[in-house]
Amino acid sequence: VLVTSGVITLTTDFGMQDGYVAAMKGVMLGLAPDVRFVDISHDIPPQDVMSGAFVLRNVWSTFPEGTVHLAVVDPGVGTTRRAIAMRYAGHTFVGPDNGLFSLVLSGDMPEQVVQLDQKRFWRNADPSPTFHGRDVFAPVAAQISTGLSIRSAGTVVESVRKMHWALPISDDEGIQGWVVHVDRFGNCITNITRSEFESRRRRRSVKCYAGNAIIPHCSRTYADVPAGDAMLLVNSSDFVEIAIHNGSAAQMLDIRKGAPVNILFADERT
Amino acid sequence: VLVTSGVITLTTDFGMQDGYVAAMKGVMLGLAPDVRFVDISHDIPPQDVMSGAFVLRNVWSTFPEGTVHLAVVDPGVGTTRRAIAMRYAGHTFVGPDNGLFSLVLSGDMPEQVVQLDQKRFWRNADPSPTFHGRDVFAPVAAQISTGLSIRSAGTVVESVRKMHWALPISDDEGIQGWVVHVDRFGNCITNITRSEFESRRRRRSVKCYAGNAIIPHCSRTYADVPAGDAMLLVNSSDFVEIAIHNGSAAQMLDIRKGAPVNILFADERT
Amino acid sequence: VLVTSGVITLTTDFGMQDGYVAAMKGVMLGLAPDVRFVDISHDIPPQDVMSGAFVLRNVWSTFPEGTVHLAVVDPGVGTTRRAIAMRYAGHTFVGPDNGLFSLVLSGDMPEQVVQLDQKRFWRNADPSPTFHGRDVFAPVAAQISTGLSIRSAGTVVESVRKMHWALPISDDEGIQGWVVHVDRFGNCITNITRSEFESRRRRRSVKCYAGNAIIPHCSRTYADVPAGDAMLLVNSSDFVEIAIHNGSAAQMLDIRKGAPVNILFADERT
Repeated sequence: VLVTSGVITLTTDFGMQDGYVAAMKGVMLGLAPDVRFVDISHDIPPQDVMSGAFVLRNVWSTFPEGTVHLAVVDPGVGTTRRAIAMRYAGHTFVGPDNGLFSLVLSGDMPEQVVQLDQKRFWRNADPSPTFHGRDVFAPVAAQISTGLSIRSAGTVVESVRKMHWALPISDDEGIQGWVVHVDRFGNCITNITRSEFESRRRRRSVKCYAGNAIIPHCSRTYADVPAGDAMLLVNSSDFVEIAIHNGSAAQMLDIRKGAPVNILFADERT
Repeated sequence: VLVTSGVITLTTDFGMQDGYVAAMKGVMLGLAPDVRFVDISHDIPPQDVMSGAFVLRNVWSTFPEGTVHLAVVDPGVGTTRRAIAMRYAGHTFVGPDNGLFSLVLSGDMPEQVVQLDQKRFWRNADPSPTFHGRDVFAPVAAQISTGLSIRSAGTVVESVRKMHWALPISDDEGIQGWVVHVDRFGNCITNITRSEFESRRRRRSVKCYAGNAIIPHCSRTYADVPAGDAMLLVNSSDFVEIAIHNGSAAQMLDIRKGAPVNILFADERT
Repeated sequence: VLVTSGVITLTTDFGMQDGYVAAMKGVMLGLAPDVRFVDISHDIPPQDVMSGAFVLRNVWSTFPEGTVHLAVVDPGVGTTRRAIAMRYAGHTFVGPDNGLFSLVLSGDMPEQVVQLDQKRFWRNADPSPTFHGRDVFAPVAAQISTGLSIRSAGTVVESVRKMHWALPISDDEGIQGWVVHVDRFGNCITNITRSEFESRRRRRSVKCYAGNAIIPHCSRTYADVPAGDAMLLVNSSDFVEIAIHNGSAAQMLDIRKGAPVNILFADERT
């Protein structure tokens, strides 16, 4: 028997202004009256599947086993792109098969994937071609959270669509990565993971070129440098990040998503 | 006995930055400890009653019967405008009597309307003249969600205030409507309903003038045209909408709320 | 035995775009599966502790006794600033000891304060130096909401750090205060309390200089003046506020946070 936490998380590019998120919740409460919702983010930039994948990747594993993660960033809604549900590490993911779950899996294979083709679990057999979130994904997610197996909700398929970032380029002298996310504070998060950074660094000193700044060392926390100074650190999601103490690195260093970040390693005495 | 879903939805122009919404929820949790909240929208433009009416109209019926919909867009707070509760189609609506529930009802009559004048159900007998949401509407909504009849909470009145949009103008050759809402994606939603559109169209071809674009046909879903192209479709709330595939119609076509949209019908061969 | 309401409120400067708030909720749901969350605000300006203190001050007491208020505006995260839990008036407050709870207490002393040093209640013994919200504060708050005493979660300390605003300057002729908060409507809220205003005013007439306006009297509610006119009133949180009927005082009067507001009193006949 599968565990269920009774929790459904939501990750979308719908924003909160128009009531689209509430329409999904209304449908789900009709099918699963005791479900609890947690909004992960509804401010994913419109149609930006990789941005949704990144935010979901950083958060899903903080939730208890048996949580259902409903994610809808779906530029292909109404086309032949598949609607899927996927089991991975005790959690269930429901959404379009367009790469949105790539970073949850990183290199792994999901335990089970189904294409959602059982219309009896949908809101109606003829869903709106522009709002599968409300008419397909939400009702299926709600029923999974009350015990429906994903096997019953669809037909098993072999794989999910994967998208991935350009990987950092690294050698013994340094690493070149890219900014993949700018957060609310203006912190610039790169695609360089803690493990790649630490295995390449091997306790050497660090020099980092990012935007218009040269950052001469690696910090542990935001307050390690004077207010207004730039820093490089490994963040709470295990990515290398460029930040400003009490300021916005994106603004003050003129860094945007996609900007290169170059890290050089050197022995302390050079 | 009336059904209650234990759910209260909230629709306001309060925003989420200042804690005003949380103040209402705090009051409600003190009176109805097991209530569940769903935020429909708190980003209704300040004092824009019709915008609140539109968002509520699109969402309320996705919720289960017995839901209480608390809506506060209330430029007349503290004046003699009435505070009301209303029963319609198994749902209860609580808020100011200023037209906010007009589009929920469309042409129908509510089953029951009361003016909220029973101060024993308020937060205190002397509510803040600037925040009836916290001191009048929230406590009444909470108590209705735990079983209070609206008849007990006030005095029956005959009608609610109605506001309505300018209606589209149509004849056999075409329809002229107006943009009544621009959503987070920049989709421009008109006041032309699916039924008016389809009954006038009668399977003829469509040509639409909207902003700086001429749209030569009607689409079914956003991905029916190449990325960046404009389209006309009937959306998931059954209104005619102008959109851009993977783009913002409002920005790219220079369309704002209130802009006219002209649709012409023609036999395929002309 | 302490009462618990099962409710945890959240006040942060995290925004809702990046999933940081959801990470805290995920951790808490793993420890307290039945907890209910209410977001007070996540739009506190980054690192603005006093702004967080102000919003929390206006809202916390609307919640039922036994509520846990988790607040994280924490520019000193990862440094030696203390992490605390505090009991006051039947509520529990959890967050950094940086002044965030100053306005909740106003002049009072908390009933009990502990420094959170019992790592067995943390997410892990080695928390991320940049995200104590997820790894320290959230798990402790969740366990307090299910019955953990704050005494068990830490070591008693004598006091909390207090910050305070510049106080208004007043004499028999008038009061000079400052705008401490501009809300979503553009209402400009000052640091002048109802009690200071009323005790100085003694039923005399009022003249107020704020931004580019001279406001000749005191109003009771927003609709007391014609649309577009400026007014002064005592708001629902018992502070003097400058507002515009159906408009933004901040924009139309060119007032920002920190701007002075001068109020003069005069007998009716002068």
